[in-house]
Amino acid sequence: MTPNASALLDRLAAIVGPTGLVTGEELRGRPASWTRPAEPCAALALVRPRDTAETGAVLTACAEAGAAIVPRGGATGLVDGILSAPDQITLSTERMTAIESLDPLSMTMVAGSGVTIEAVQNAAREAGLFFPLDLGARGSATVGGTISTNAGGLRVLRYGMMREMVLGLEAVLADGTVVSSMRPLIKNNTGLDLKQLFLGTEGTLGIVTRAVLRLRPEPAGYATALVACPGVDDGARVLRAAQSAFQGRVSSFEGLWPDFYRLMTKPGRATPPLGPDYPFYAIIEVECVAEETDRFLDLLDRLMGEGTVLDAALASSEEQRQGMWRIRDRVENMNADGIVRAFDVSVPLDRMDGYVRGALARMAAIPDCRVVVYGHIGDNNLHWNTTDLDGPGNAAIDAAIYEPLADLNGSVSAEHGIGLEKRGKLGLSRSAEEIATMRLVKRALDPDNRLNPGKIF
Amino acid sequence: MTPNASALLDRLAAIVGPTGLVTGEELRGRPASWTRPAEPCAALALVRPRDTAETGAVLTACAEAGAAIVPRGGATGLVDGILSAPDQITLSTERMTAIESLDPLSMTMVAGSGVTIEAVQNAAREAGLFFPLDLGARGSATVGGTISTNAGGLRVLRYGMMREMVLGLEAVLADGTVVSSMRPLIKNNTGLDLKQLFLGTEGTLGIVTRAVLRLRPEPAGYATALVACPGVDDGARVLRAAQSAFQGRVSSFEGLWPDFYRLMTKPGRATPPLGPDYPFYAIIEVECVAEETDRFLDLLDRLMGEGTVLDAALASSEEQRQGMWRIRDRVENMNADGIVRAFDVSVPLDRMDGYVRGALARMAAIPDCRVVVYGHIGDNNLHWNTTDLDGPGNAAIDAAIYEPLADLNGSVSAEHGIGLEKRGKLGLSRSAEEIATMRLVKRALDPDNRLNPGKIF
Ligand SMILES: Cc1cc2nc3c(=O)[nH]c(=O)nc-3n(C[C@H](O)[C@H](O)[C@H](O)COP(=O)(O)OP(=O)(O)OC[C@H]3O[C@@H](n4cnc5c(N)ncnc54)[C@H](O)[C@@H]3O)c2cc1C
Ligand SMILES: Cc1cc2nc3c(=O)[nH]c(=O)nc-3n(C[C@H](O)[C@H](O)[C@H](O)COP(=O)(O)OP(=O)(O)OC[C@H]3O[C@@H](n4cnc5c(N)ncnc54)[C@H](O)[C@@H]3O)c2cc1C
Repeated sequence: MTPNASALLDRLAAIVGPTGLVTGEELRGRPASWTRPAEPCAALALVRPRDTAETGAVLTACAEAGAAIVPRGGATGLVDGILSAPDQITLSTERMTAIESLDPLSMTMVAGSGVTIEAVQNAAREAGLFFPLDLGARGSATVGGTISTNAGGLRVLRYGMMREMVLGLEAVLADGTVVSSMRPLIKNNTGLDLKQLFLGTEGTLGIVTRAVLRLRPEPAGYATALVACPGVDDGARVLRAAQSAFQGRVSSFEGLWPDFYRLMTKPGRATPPLGPDYPFYAIIEVECVAEETDRFLDLLDRLMGEGTVLDAALASSEEQRQGMWRIRDRVENMNADGIVRAFDVSVPLDRMDGYVRGALARMAAIPDCRVVVYGHIGDNNLHWNTTDLDGPGNAAIDAAIYEPLADLNGSVSAEHGIGLEKRGKLGLSRSAEEIATMRLVKRALDPDNRLNPGKIF
Repeated sequence: MTPNASALLDRLAAIVGPTGLVTGEELRGRPASWTRPAEPCAALALVRPRDTAETGAVLTACAEAGAAIVPRGGATGLVDGILSAPDQITLSTERMTAIESLDPLSMTMVAGSGVTIEAVQNAAREAGLFFPLDLGARGSATVGGTISTNAGGLRVLRYGMMREMVLGLEAVLADGTVVSSMRPLIKNNTGLDLKQLFLGTEGTLGIVTRAVLRLRPEPAGYATALVACPGVDDGARVLRAAQSAFQGRVSSFEGLWPDFYRLMTKPGRATPPLGPDYPFYAIIEVECVAEETDRFLDLLDRLMGEGTVLDAALASSEEQRQGMWRIRDRVENMNADGIVRAFDVSVPLDRMDGYVRGALARMAAIPDCRVVVYGHIGDNNLHWNTTDLDGPGNAAIDAAIYEPLADLNGSVSAEHGIGLEKRGKLGLSRSAEEIATMRLVKRALDPDNRLNPGKIF
């Protein structure tokens, strides 16, 4: 360690207290991230401020020492956004875990950035309310991490992404300036909406320390069905019809292409409610009260009459509903079949059919490539999962999946972000002018490029 | 006119064609804005590019000549955001009025920034869809203007503000760079969400030329009631209960304080469905199908049983519904009583009661001051209307309304923006650090301060 580095660590320890700084063996005992459980965290030190003021002091100290900072929340991000180099300081929000207040009348909550999504959900539930963001990583993913990645998850169709759930936030800029925008207001047209600078920018513009979250009433219940359709365009028609009939209360619409459906319903896996030979399947779930089930059935009947739906199965119990969701959710079934590489892209709904057909045809020509496809198609979001072929095979798969997106107005990252992993792909989703404009903002807020440097671009 | 100015005008005319440049008498014939019908537009010239490329060329020419640009849409903004000085160029979007495409399946529309909100609504309706943004100025207010002010209006509670209705947009920066982010995607986590830079920033960061708008299914119908409550907190409870019972489908919740209710229901004005002596009234409207009316009545009964609602009237026909809305909407009734100064602020719901009581008490002490208050309280948005007292009287009213907002975490502008009119109030809603951060972004995108200079700050 250089004398400068050791002086910085002394200063940081003085700010956060001796237990606030993690170094050496203890630090190497922590994994680099959820996707890299065997790699140790490589940072010079991990610093754990207790609040915004300490975070500000940490950033000022790092600014004066010229040290780079890598923010770290629950470490569940999927694009290597928290990897740090040996001369960088990892700043963990793990001690900023207070739920400071919850107002049931205005349906808002103030939470520290280290609070997990599960804790937010539980606190909301205890108050008779509901926090809609939900994702498999809920037990570890944090408020700050989901803000910084603008996380999506299972209910975007109905409630939006994290962007729509944050009313205000507090962030610390690279130079230690605290920018507090914690007003619990739905309407506040007083200049640039500053929280948008930190939503989805992966810690490159500031460290989020607290947020005002918007809560919702608890859903009254669900009607859930699996439908089979002649194709994805018919699936889109089913979604449209259900959105109309239930005034936007479709909470999930998960498209399942046949290879995915067959893989997930192999003997010993989820029980298939419908036969295996249809061209397209979708799980559709509507938020509604029990009395509305008849209207849901009428809708499915009408769509079958029109030929938009070929067959349908309604979940008539919570057990059956869970069974349907197992067709969608049991990722381990893909892994068991060696289909382990995951992709997260988005495509306009009216271009989806052509895109999927084209990419499948390209991958059919790659030796040993197996692939399945499914996704939150109502959000334009497709997940591909493929075999891991190493080298040229994987490169050919990547090309088949990513390359067409530029011309189709799609995105190389629907929800996970760019991090380090997708940096090379950014240009497929963003024009040179867009990237240059992002850089203008980055330079304005972090002129020395010390906040999560090298991530995104 | 200086030789430089005249050279610039020649160059602009060459870009937009002779009919694209408005100067002299013709220009003075145009009003400065909707709120200043008698004042002529003061700009050096008004330039009307036909598309993004021409807009880019206009901005490049102005950059090279060092001229400032004031963007102008429908001119209905209420905060003097489009006022221009005699050496400035007004850029009007009035020739960018094409609805380029509408995709009924993915429920998206591509429109030029000069398209009026009414035209967007009509095109959506013709396709069996719905564009939720609605405001009194719909016939003139434009896509670009509502983006640049992040307009709100009548359905924010259910559908959000303009921010939530824009999937992508195209803008031209001060130096003429075209930044096109026109992807029709709900999910696209690839770095900073650039459209947020232009939403609500009143033309200070770029000129919006086109946008991808998100459409919705048409509402199936409404249940509408007027309720009387012991106070605004009970009103908030009614809202909460209705949001739960109807899964977020409350489309309007308009609080009416007694003086406002009495003024609007004077003989010859709207017919009062309830007596005049309750402490608080609210119009509540839920988007639902006809079969759900019974559940709505059950809810009102339950709330009356609990004492949260003191009395209620259900609109049992479209005519009765319109009658209820007249209580809220007939602004001319206030004007007829000399209550002409309008305020648009927001306050957290749990602080609203105290704020209104305090401000009313302060205004009661101002000689000749008459005041009424009402608003979209579910959005935190209050409208005050007061008499116009000139000089110290108005200053005292302003102080009573604005000053408490800073401590209450409120906002001096819920929906109309800052423009020139509220510049002096910005510091009540934004901290020095917030304003400094906005300035960093402004300087990064418009280093010479040529886009709508002097507006907001
Ligand atoms: C099993 C599993 C399921 C998942 N499902 C989904 C899903 O459905 N939808 C989805 O969108 N994502 C999903 N993810 C990805 C991941 O959960 C999200 O990206 C999540 O938002 C990360 O939160 P985190 O707290 O773990 O952040 P981290 O992984 O710690 O960090 C993520 C990024 O944000 C930055 N960051 C973290 N905290 C802060 C802060 N306070 N201030 C500034 N920057 C910060 C980091 O530097 C990094 O760039 C899933 C991940 C797993 C492991
Ligand atoms: C009767 C009436 C009712 C109203 N009701 C509401 C309401 O309920 N809710 C609400 O929020 N507002 C309301 N308003 C205010 C007004 O309608 C909105 O602010 C509207 O968004 C302005 O649109 P416009 O096209 O007229 O913009 P303009 O008034 O022309 O411009 C508004 C601002 O945006 C900038 N601008 C305009 N076009 C562009 C562009 N293409 N690119 C960059 N900057 C641009 C201008 O420079 C200016 O700063 C109302 C106004 C009136 C007159």
